[in-house]
This record gives sequence, C-alpha cells and structure tokens, in this order.
Amino acid sequence: MGLVNCAEYADGQRVGEVHLPDVSDVLGRRNPSHFVWIGLHEPDEALLREVQDEFRLHDLAVEDAHRAHQRPKLEEYGDAIFIVLRTAQRSADGKIAFGETHLFVGPGYVVSVRHGASVPYVDVRQRCESAPHLLKKGPGFVLYALMDFVVDRYFPIVDELEEELETLEEAIFGGSYRRETTERIYDLKRDLLGLKRAVSPLIDICNRLTRYDSQLIDADSRPYFRDIYDHVIRINETVDNLRELLNGALEANLSLISIQQNEVTKKLASWAAILAVPTAVAGIYGMNFETMPELKWAFGYPLILGVMGAACGFLYWRFKKSGWL
Amino acid sequence: MGLVNCAEYADGQRVGEVHLPDVSDVLGRRNPSHFVWIGLHEPDEALLREVQDEFRLHDLAVEDAHRAHQRPKLEEYGDAIFIVLRTAQRSADGKIAFGETHLFVGPGYVVSVRHGASVPYVDVRQRCESAPHLLKKGPGFVLYALMDFVVDRYFPIVDELEEELETLEEAIFGGSYRRETTERIYDLKRDLLGLKRAVSPLIDICNRLTRYDSQLIDADSRPYFRDIYDHVIRINETVDNLRELLNGALEANLSLISIQQNEVTKKLASWAAILAVPTAVAGIYGMNFETMPELKWAFGYPLILGVMGAACGFLYWRFKKSGWL
Amino acid sequence: MGLVNCAEYADGQRVGEVHLPDVSDVLGRRNPSHFVWIGLHEPDEALLREVQDEFRLHDLAVEDAHRAHQRPKLEEYGDAIFIVLRTAQRSADGKIAFGETHLFVGPGYVVSVRHGASVPYVDVRQRCESAPHLLKKGPGFVLYALMDFVVDRYFPIVDELEEELETLEEAIFGGSYRRETTERIYDLKRDLLGLKRAVSPLIDICNRLTRYDSQLIDADSRPYFRDIYDHVIRINETVDNLRELLNGALEANLSLISIQQNEVTKKLASWAAILAVPTAVAGIYGMNFETMPELKWAFGYPLILGVMGAACGFLYWRFKKSGWL
Amino acid sequence: MGLVNCAEYADGQRVGEVHLPDVSDVLGRRNPSHFVWIGLHEPDEALLREVQDEFRLHDLAVEDAHRAHQRPKLEEYGDAIFIVLRTAQRSADGKIAFGETHLFVGPGYVVSVRHGASVPYVDVRQRCESAPHLLKKGPGFVLYALMDFVVDRYFPIVDELEEELETLEEAIFGGSYRRETTERIYDLKRDLLGLKRAVSPLIDICNRLTRYDSQLIDADSRPYFRDIYDHVIRINETVDNLRELLNGALEANLSLISIQQNEVTKKLASWAAILAVPTAVAGIYGMNFETMPELKWAFGYPLILGVMGAACGFLYWRFKKSGWL
Amino acid sequence: MGLVNCAEYADGQRVGEVHLPDVSDVLGRRNPSHFVWIGLHEPDEALLREVQDEFRLHDLAVEDAHRAHQRPKLEEYGDAIFIVLRTAQRSADGKIAFGETHLFVGPGYVVSVRHGASVPYVDVRQRCESAPHLLKKGPGFVLYALMDFVVDRYFPIVDELEEELETLEEAIFGGSYRRETTERIYDLKRDLLGLKRAVSPLIDICNRLTRYDSQLIDADSRPYFRDIYDHVIRINETVDNLRELLNGALEANLSLISIQQNEVTKKLASWAAILAVPTAVAGIYGMNFETMPELKWAFGYPLILGVMGAACGFLYWRFKKSGWL
Repeated sequence: MGLVNCAEYADGQRVGEVHLPDVSDVLGRRNPSHFVWIGLHEPDEALLREVQDEFRLHDLAVEDAHRAHQRPKLEEYGDAIFIVLRTAQRSADGKIAFGETHLFVGPGYVVSVRHGASVPYVDVRQRCESAPHLLKKGPGFVLYALMDFVVDRYFPIVDELEEELETLEEAIFGGSYRRETTERIYDLKRDLLGLKRAVSPLIDICNRLTRYDSQLIDADSRPYFRDIYDHVIRINETVDNLRELLNGALEANLSLISIQQNEVTKKLASWAAILAVPTAVAGIYGMNFETMPELKWAFGYPLILGVMGAACGFLYWRFKKSGWL
Repeated sequence: MGLVNCAEYADGQRVGEVHLPDVSDVLGRRNPSHFVWIGLHEPDEALLREVQDEFRLHDLAVEDAHRAHQRPKLEEYGDAIFIVLRTAQRSADGKIAFGETHLFVGPGYVVSVRHGASVPYVDVRQRCESAPHLLKKGPGFVLYALMDFVVDRYFPIVDELEEELETLEEAIFGGSYRRETTERIYDLKRDLLGLKRAVSPLIDICNRLTRYDSQLIDADSRPYFRDIYDHVIRINETVDNLRELLNGALEANLSLISIQQNEVTKKLASWAAILAVPTAVAGIYGMNFETMPELKWAFGYPLILGVMGAACGFLYWRFKKSGWL
Repeated sequence: MGLVNCAEYADGQRVGEVHLPDVSDVLGRRNPSHFVWIGLHEPDEALLREVQDEFRLHDLAVEDAHRAHQRPKLEEYGDAIFIVLRTAQRSADGKIAFGETHLFVGPGYVVSVRHGASVPYVDVRQRCESAPHLLKKGPGFVLYALMDFVVDRYFPIVDELEEELETLEEAIFGGSYRRETTERIYDLKRDLLGLKRAVSPLIDICNRLTRYDSQLIDADSRPYFRDIYDHVIRINETVDNLRELLNGALEANLSLISIQQNEVTKKLASWAAILAVPTAVAGIYGMNFETMPELKWAFGYPLILGVMGAACGFLYWRFKKSGWL
Repeated sequence: MGLVNCAEYADGQRVGEVHLPDVSDVLGRRNPSHFVWIGLHEPDEALLREVQDEFRLHDLAVEDAHRAHQRPKLEEYGDAIFIVLRTAQRSADGKIAFGETHLFVGPGYVVSVRHGASVPYVDVRQRCESAPHLLKKGPGFVLYALMDFVVDRYFPIVDELEEELETLEEAIFGGSYRRETTERIYDLKRDLLGLKRAVSPLIDICNRLTRYDSQLIDADSRPYFRDIYDHVIRINETVDNLRELLNGALEANLSLISIQQNEVTKKLASWAAILAVPTAVAGIYGMNFETMPELKWAFGYPLILGVMGAACGFLYWRFKKSGWL
Repeated sequence: MGLVNCAEYADGQRVGEVHLPDVSDVLGRRNPSHFVWIGLHEPDEALLREVQDEFRLHDLAVEDAHRAHQRPKLEEYGDAIFIVLRTAQRSADGKIAFGETHLFVGPGYVVSVRHGASVPYVDVRQRCESAPHLLKKGPGFVLYALMDFVVDRYFPIVDELEEELETLEEAIFGGSYRRETTERIYDLKRDLLGLKRAVSPLIDICNRLTRYDSQLIDADSRPYFRDIYDHVIRINETVDNLRELLNGALEANLSLISIQQNEVTKKLASWAAILAVPTAVAGIYGMNFETMPELKWAFGYPLILGVMGAACGFLYWRFKKSGWL
C-alpha cells in the first residue's frame, strides 16, 4: 500500500501535506515547534529506503522494519527511538491474528509502519488533530496516542477470551467430555500464549518510557505513559489469570473424565452381575442329567423364574443403594 | 448514591460539615492543622468533575476513579497520592464479590470513592473521630485507618476459605468421588486466585508507604503502615498456602479416583470369574451327546452342583485373600 | 500461666529475682553490664500491659504479642527489636503442633513470651547461667541462646518426617495401593508446608541479625547468628528436598496404580477369553438340531472335552508367554 | 583437519596468507590497522600448542578449546576474550547435532576453532572481505560476523521444530493415539531442551558484548551486537513458546486418550448389555423343566425371537440416544 | 583413622613431616613462603581439639567439622576461611554415597578433614608436589587443587546417570511398563536431587572465591577458581537437564501406559464381542420349544455353524480394520 499519510504540524496544528522528498528540508530547519508525522502500510523496500534517507534512520532499525516478525522492543539510536509493537485482531472465526507496528520517533518526526493484522491509524491522527493543546507537545505525544490506541485494542480481545473460558467451563462442568472441548482448551491456551508474548514485553517498554529523560518525552507527559503501563499490567495480569484458570479447568476436566470412567465401569459391572445370575441358573436347569428332581415339580419353572427375578431384584437394589447404578 | 459525607477537621476534632463548593476555599487557606475528608459512593460523572475541580485532582486519576475496574495501585501526582484498593465481601451463597475503593490523599484532604461490594466507611470515620490524638496526625492517619479497615475485612474471608478446604478434604478422603467435589475444588481455586490478585499488589503498596518520605506520612506513622504490611503479608501467605494445599488435595483426589477404579475393576473381574465357572460347567452338561456317562449317574446332578459350589467358593476365598474382593 | 521467671544479671552472673514493678527502676539505672531477663507464658492482657509499661515496649509489638497467630518476623522499634518465632512439637499421634515465641530485646532487657506448643525455656536459662563468660555479652547472647534452642528443636521433627517418607516409599513400591497411602502423602505434604512456613522466614531474620550493626549484637557475636542461619538454611533445604521427593513419590504412586490397573485388565481379559471358549463350544453342542452327527459318535463327548481343554490350555500358554497372566 | 585458513588483513583488505610461525612477528609489530584471522577445524594438540605460542593464549582457554564439550561462555583473559558458541545442524533423519566453535579474539587477531557439527566459516570470510569498509573495524567486526552467522543458523532449525509441533498437533487432534506420537513428543522435548541449552547462555554473552567497553569493540559496533542479542532473544522466546505449547499438546494428548478410553468402555458396556439379553432369555427357554407352557405354544418360538429382538433394539436405541454407542 | 599426613612446604618444596605439637611453632615463625598442609580422616574429638589449638581455628567451624552432615558452604573467620564440600562416589550396586570434606585454609596452613565416602587426597598431594612452581603460590593453590579434585569426581557420576536415563528411555519406549521402571525413575530422581544439593551451593562458593580479594588467593590464581566455577556450572546444568528429561520420560511413561490400557481394553472388547455371537446363537437353538422348524432341517446344523463362523469372521475383519485388534 505504501505511503498512507505524510503531514507537517506546527504548534499542534496541521500545516499541510509534505512530499516525501521534501522531508529532509523540513527536518533540516530544526524548528522545535514543527514536526512531521508520516504513516506507512507494508511499504516495499524502495519506499523504505527513501524514508530512511529522508529521516536518517539507522540501518539496523530499517532492516527490522522491513523484515517484520520482530518481538516488541524499544531501541535507542542516538536521540531517536525505535519501537516495535505487536497488534492483535480477532477474525470472524475466532482466531487471533497478530500484526506489527514499527515506530521511529526522533526530534521533529514520527514514522509509523504497519504490517499485517491491525486497524489503520487514521482515527488516532484525527483525534490528535482535534486536540491541538496536547498535540503541541510534539512527537512524544503522538507516540503516546499510537501506543494507547494499540494497547486499548487488546481489552476487547481479552474480554472475548474470558467469555470463551466461561463457555468452556460450562462445557466441562455440564458433563459432556468431548474431544472438541480438549481441542478448544488447547486453542485457548495457544491464544493466551500469543497474547502473553505480544503484551508482556510492553511492560518493560512502557516502564522505560515513564522513566525516559530526554527532549522527546517531557516530565509532564510521563503520567500518560504510566497510564499505558497500567493498562499493559492489567492486560498481562488478566492473561496470567486466564492461563491459571484454564489450567485449573483442564485439571477439572481430566478429573471429571476419570470420575465418569469410574461411573461407567461401575454401571457395567453392576449390569454384568445382574444378568449373569439368570444365565447361570438357567444353565444349571438346562443340564441333561437324568435325575434332576426339580425338573419334575409342577411349579418348578415358575419357582425358578421367581428365584431368578428375586436375585436380580436384590442385586439391583444393592447396587442402587451403594450408588453403583 | 453520590456524596456520603464531607467534613472539616481541625487538630483532630470535627469542625463541621463543608459544602462541596466551599472546599477549594478551605484548602486555599492552607492551614496545616486543618483537613477535609469526604466520602463518595459510586458518584456520577458530574459530581466527580466537581470534586476534581475543588480538590485539583489529576485528570488521569479521576478517569481511573470513574471507570473503576482498576487493579490495586499507588500513584503519585506531585505531592498527592492516588491509591486503588480492592475490597471483598462474601455473599450469602458463598461467592466472593469484589469492590473497589479509590483514595485521593493530599495536603489537607482525603477523598474516598467506593464502588461495588464493600462496607461503608462510616465506622472508620467514627473510630477516627473518637481518637482525636491520632486523627490530629492528619490525612496520613485517615489513609492508615481506611487501609487497615479494608485489609482487616480479608481475614474472615480467608478463614472461611480455610474451612471450605477442610470440608473438601473430608469429602475427598471420605471416599465419595463426585463431580460436585471437582467443581468445588475449581471454584475454590478461582476464589483464591481472585483474592491473590486483590491482595498481592498491596504488599508493594504498603512497602512503599512504610518507606514514604513526605509531609503526608511522618516517621512516627510508619510503624502503622508496617503493621498493615504485616497483615497483607499474612493474608497473602495464607492464600498461597491454601493454593498449595488445594493442589495437593486435587492430586489426592485424582489418585483416589484411580485407586477406586482399580478396586472396582478387581471386583468386576473377581465376580465375572466366579460366575463364569458354573456357567461353563452347566454348559458342558447341557450338551446333547448321546454318550455322556455322568448324566446317567444317580448322584451326577448333586455331585456337579457340589463341584460348582466348591469351585466358586475356592475362587471367592482366593480373591478375598488377595484383596480383590 | 503468666510470669514464669524474672531475674537480673550483672556481668553474666545472676543477681537475683526482680519484682515486675521494680523493673523500670533497674532499667532506669542504665548500668551497661546489668540486664533483666523475664519469661512469660500465655500472659493475660493486664500482665502484658504491666510488662509494656515497665519495659516501655511499643504498642503495636505488644498487640502482636497478645494476639499471637503472627508469622515469624523481626521488627525494629528504635534501638529495640521485636522477634516472632514459630515453635514446633510433634505430638504422640504424629501431628505437628505449632506455637509461638515473641522476644522483645532492647538495651538492658530480654522479654520472652511463649504461646501454644513449645518447650519451656528453663533449660536455656540454666545453660546460659552456667556459662557466665558468654552471658556477660548481654541481651544479644540471650537472644542467640533462645533462637538456637528454638531452631534446634526442628531437627528431630525433620528427621521424623524423613522417616515417614521412607515408610511411604516402602508402602508405594511394596505394591499395595491403598487409600490410606494417599491420605498419608497428603498429610505429609501439609506438615512440610507448615514447617516451610515456620522456618523459611527465619532465613531472612537470621541474615539480618548477622549483618546487624548495633549495641545489642556486637561483631564477635555475629558468627553465632551465622551459625543459626546455617542451621535454618539446612532445615529449609531438607524440607524442600522432602517436598520434591514426596512429589516424585506421588507421581510414582499414580504411575504404579496405572500399571496395576493395566495388569488387572489384562488378567481379566485373559481369563474371560479362556472361559469363553468352553462356554461357546458347549453352547454349540447344546443346540437341539435333529441332525448333529457328532452327538451320535461314541467318543464325541470325551473328544469335545479334550478340544475344550486343549483350546483353554493353548490360550493360557499364549497369555502366559505374552505376560498377560 | 587442522589449519583451514590463515590470513592477514590491513585496513579491511586481505594482505595475504601468513605462515603460522610468522604470526608472532606480525602481532609483534602492533600495527593497529592490521590483524590476523585464522581458522582451525578440530586441530590436534600439537597444532593447538603452536597456535597458543604464536598468539600467547591463556593455558586454561586452550585446554577448553582442546577438550570441547564446553557450554557457551565468554571469558576475559587480560585484553583478550575467549568465547565458546554451540552450533547446531539438523541431519537428514531430523536429529539435531550440536557442534562447538571457540573464538579467541584479542588486539590484532581472531582465532576460530570448529568442532563437530557446523558449517565452515569460508562464507563468513568471503562476505567480510567483500565489505572492506566494515572489516576495517578490526577483530571486533569479525567476531560479530562469526556470531551472527552462528546465531542465524538457528532460525531454520527453530522453524522446522515449529512445523514438527504442527504435525504432532494434527496427529493428536486427528484421533489416533499411537505410541509413536508420545515418542515424538518426547524427542521434540529433548531437542528443545538441547536448543535452549545452546541458545540461552548467548543472551548473557551478547548482553555483555553490547556493554563491552574496550578497544576490541567500539561504541559504533555495539548496535551490531545488540542486533545479535535481539535475534538470540527471539530464538530463545520461540523455544520457550514451543516448550509451553508442547506441554499443552501433551496434556491434550493424555486427556484425549482418557476420553477415548471412556468411549471404548461405554461401547464395550453397551454391546455386552445388548448381547447379554438374548443369551439370558435363550438360557431360560433352554431349561429342561417338564412343565413350561410357553414351549408348547405354536408361536412360542417366533414370539420369543421377537421379544429378544425388541429388547436388543430398545437397548440399542437407548444407548445410541445417550451417546454411548 | 585420625591424622593421615602432616607436612611443611617451603617455596613449593616439601620440607618434611611436622609433628602436630610443633605446628604452632612453625606457624608462629610467620615465614610467608612456608606453609603446613595436614590431612585428617574422620578424626576423633581429642585429635580435632589438638588441631584446633595448634592452628587456632574458630570454635564454631571445628564443631561443624566434628559433627559433619553440613551443607557445602564457605565461611570466613577473620583472615581464614572454612569450606565444606560434599564428595560423591558411586558404589558397586549403583547407589551414590555422599561424603564430606572440610577445609580450613588460612595464612600458612591448609587443614583437610575427610568424612564418609570419598577418595583419599594422596593423589592431590603428589600432583601438587610434582609441580613446585604452582605449589609455591601457597595454601590458595592447595585449596584449588583439592576443590578441582573433588569437582572432577562428579563428571563420571553424571555420565553414569546420563547412561542410566538412556537405559530407562529404552525401557519406556520399548513397550514394557513394569513397576521396576517406575521405581528406577524414582531412584534416578532421588540421585539427581542429591547431586543437585551437593553441587549447586558450589556455584556460589566458587563465584565468591573468584572475586576473593585477600592474601590467600592472588589475582593470578582467580582464573583457576573460575575454571572450577565453570565445571560446577556445567555439572549443575547437566543435572538440571537430566531432571527435565526424566520428567519428560515419566510423562511419556504415563501416557504410554494409558495408551496400552486403551489397546488392551479394545482387544478385550473385540474378543468379547466375537465370542458373544456364537454363544447367543447357540443359546437360541438350545431352546426347547416344540415348534422350531430350523431344528428339523437336514442342513440346519451346518448352516447355523456357517452363520456363526461368518458373523465371527465379519466382526474380526471389522475390528482388525479399525485397529482394535
């Protein structure tokens, strides 16, 4: 998609679009109240090289931005910082897709590079432009606005996973032990692990930003980054919580499967015993001995049927009482 | 419910009610022996904004207080501190409900905001007012009184969970492996996890308060916060202990289910063997061969019945001896 | 029981009994070579208040000493320290009962308060009095003597738990998988957890005492506290070791139960197969078809008995060979 | 194989081959823009001694290089460093073979010693020689190039293990619980453990190199080592992730085996019950009582066959409905 | 056994035997190039007291040396150090026996005390005496030589445990799930735990020795202790690795037992079904109804035998196809 947006701001007000080749001129003026904010979406190598040349970004950072598949991190290159964030979106079929956003923030500029699953940052730009008294703070505030946006996207995803766990709990304690439940437990575990990997490095990044002492982020802005830090901690904690509960649910599942196995075996044993009695008795009176006096009795047959019925009934009552049936 | 209480104190004595719009005047006088203590219960946004204006609270802190669903934390805004506590109550059906209390403490004021399940702080206020020599210490002491009250509410809850574990142990070692037991183990695990999340961040908060060096909390008051710290450590330790024991109980449960499964299978096998013998023997003498000498014997029938009985008896004795029956 | 003993010492020699109301006078003299050592056993509140007044103990420390149910801890109040120790005793039925000892140690005094299961400290006093060259070191040495005594009481308990584990191992690998074994594993786990809670906080306490820089404990005495530290580390390590081994034993138990289940099922299957053959064959020759030539053969019956026997024997041999029987 | 390559470089350009005995002369000149880079492959002791003498390497480091079977480590000997790296290769049969590379880096020289499974470093040398502006940085850059090469070799291996896990997941959730799957899970676990051991010590090594303050690695080169650090972190994280997922897969496997066991037992019980009914009924009408009126009925036989069929059908329908069949 | 060896060394050369009562004289001369090295083996208390008096060892250290059953530790007493090492030996029956060596090292002396299973240190002494240029470094070098000797003894033991694990893996994946295997897994776990306890405290001890700044160990000697440190790290890592693999093997074992249980149950169910068919059919034709037309058919008997055979064959084929048989 390439270049999405490239604008110059002065004292928190949008001055206008800037052509990429003019960026180095704008930055060269070193006007502290001016800054350039450009947004890229999956840029090709040529565009990235041009951006690198205009903004004088570090080779290694640009290589990372090109290759994507980075882990969330914050790296300093002189007075500029390079931040990698992982973005998350839940698709229609419930799978979580992860994307990446790379931010280059330096004196007088913010460059954002979006890869994979993520929402465009047009909303963030609009919201920033509608609050010039905050945007006046410069690139540091744009960095806050973008990070806040990315982190807040995690809350609904975490909420959905909480609901998914509740559905699983119902399935588990509802008494049906199906393969599907086990597979969904595993999938949820995988999702939580992915979220954990995306979110937990942010704790350290936000922590470093709240203690950052530089021109980019002034003391007044630190509570804002502490706020993001707080959100990240909460998301991370909820994910940990869900993982613990999921482990508990898995154990409960295993234990309930064993209990059901026990119950089935008991039922099997009970009915086998109940049915074995008439079979054995009938076998005895099916023997062909010449001298079997009972066979001659007039009421031998009903008597023996009664004995069979009584024995079966007694066993049924015994098993019922001891909870096997 | 909105504003519950708003009073001014001087040298530990209640001076009288203050109207919210007058608060900024009172604070403006900067009389070090005076302070205002107001209590809010689930205030709406308008009220919260008014409170913010009167006390000059920080935007981000007030936003937190409005949204609730925060984790316990302590944040400093200049010379004021913002504390979030989680409160817990056990409802009639045994479920633990969590609420939140937000405290804004600064020079000359204490603001408490209650959300969700929690006990009103009228008792704390009365107890404080009846000890003017302590209340004289100012907002720092009120902070102690409120935190002590919240933390002490956890002890009876932890005690009840300990009893719940004992009931579960009896159920587990009592020999009945029901689904319900597994579900209760899971519920207890969930409750303990919730408690852990509510209590463990308090360790760090109390620890920071005991080392706090500011006008709000003087050196004399620190042992009081160390006392709360000690209570929190104990609650936290008991929760950890219960979780370990619960894991042990779960393992014991699984192991006992397996043992019972073993016993049932052994019983099933024993009875199947005992009953299979007369069935097989009777089957043999039920064959229709023309030449089967035994069938002609006068005592063939009672003899074979005896053989059957002896075989069954022998097997029963063998199984009994080896512990299968 | 109240006050057990209250004596004054000078240069390591017992001067004589002191009446509680005279203690403040003795302490008031501030004679550095004199100190008072009193022992209390489950004192009532009035006595505790009196002791507090005489020794000028801190409110919060005395509250702790009154309420008991504290966790082991060391707290400093000015130049005095307050130490809580957990004591352990194994009762006749093998259960471990825990008590508490609270020590107030300050310049010129040692106060010990005993609660619950513990051995009286008369022995410690006698041993100290018989070594005046050591007792001369003052309250710091008494503190060492008392802590050493409490910690050394743990060794026999840990030894007994090691023996208990060995008995359990024999039960597990001896081949009988009884419910009782599982319950004993759980009980041992519970005991170890209790010991862990009693002993592990001592590591930090002793560590702090070995680095303590005050009038109470001089540089010469530190190796003594390092010695206790070393004992505590060893007890703690043994408890950890036992817990790991116990977990291993539990896993072994579960795995052996499964193996036995396997063996039982194989045996069951084998015998069911062996007995099913004559039953099926006899059933066939028990059919009432008019034309069944075998029935007319003179040696049909013995032949078929032979076939049955041969089939059963063959199956028995096969199962035996493959290890199912 | 011995000596593979030995060349002298000046200002990033290859000057030419050097004979081993001349190395000490070259180093003796202490020309800061010159350095010697030699590569050894499984050298014998004599060669290693010669290298040691020429480069003045430390006894203990050379002993390590000779014995191999070291763990990855970085050791400083004066102004030289000794680094052990583990190299990995996946053989045709899917097994991971590990080798070792030992690097001696000092002022004016780089010595690499290759043992076991690894790719020759000819490629690295060529790539370095084709970038003289970087090679000019001296031994520090060669160290980077070699480490980068070794670390990048891990990515395809980790990718293959990820694929292996996906194949295992399919096998597990596909419904066939074969021994082979368990064995492959164990093998994958073993491979991941091996990778972990090879990679995780690199985190500390790279971290130390990025903070290294010496002539060998100048401030400009640090971002390069931070880049390797980042790769190592990513590999390590992926390995951890795979291990967690593998544990989840193992649990899912166990749980699915139990579920299948449950299903099999239910099926077994159902069919046993269905077949036991006609057997019992037929047994009853096979009894030889003289007076059994049903036997005389004209339609007794078809009636009883119908009853049998109905009973079996009813049971089949019941079991089908409750999901046992 | 008492005193094994007591010699004086000067400038790395053995001067000759010293009588124990003369030691204090030798030490009194404070000749920095002289030192005394004595070896004791399970000394009685009298001998230990004499040694203590001659070398002026600290009371607490000597008490430890007398009682044995210490954990590995390093303690400083003034300018002397006291080190406890655990030694290990594998007996003929494969059990690991642990012993203890206590080392007192101070200016001018080394005292080693051997308890329990260990190899005599005569070899170490001979090796030291054959390298006077190293022995010249004094007691610090002797300490290194003794520790190196003790640590190197662990390598063959760890190798044997690795082999034991391989044998276990073969037993597990070879398909025989015997009790013995479980017991051997438990024993190996116990051995690894014992090794861990013996080796892991050495990490800290060696680490402290490599950073030791005293007359005993000079800067030149530190790489030697770093070498031991490296060996200890490797042993420790291998033990951790073995423990993880063993846990994996245990899980694999449990999972394979479950799979076999599944297979056995399936086989049992299949054969029960196959044999139940002819039994049921034969039962039907064994009924005594007067009107059963099939009984009169000339080929009824062979027909029904054929039906039975076909049904059994069909079931056998179905079960075979679905992998149950």
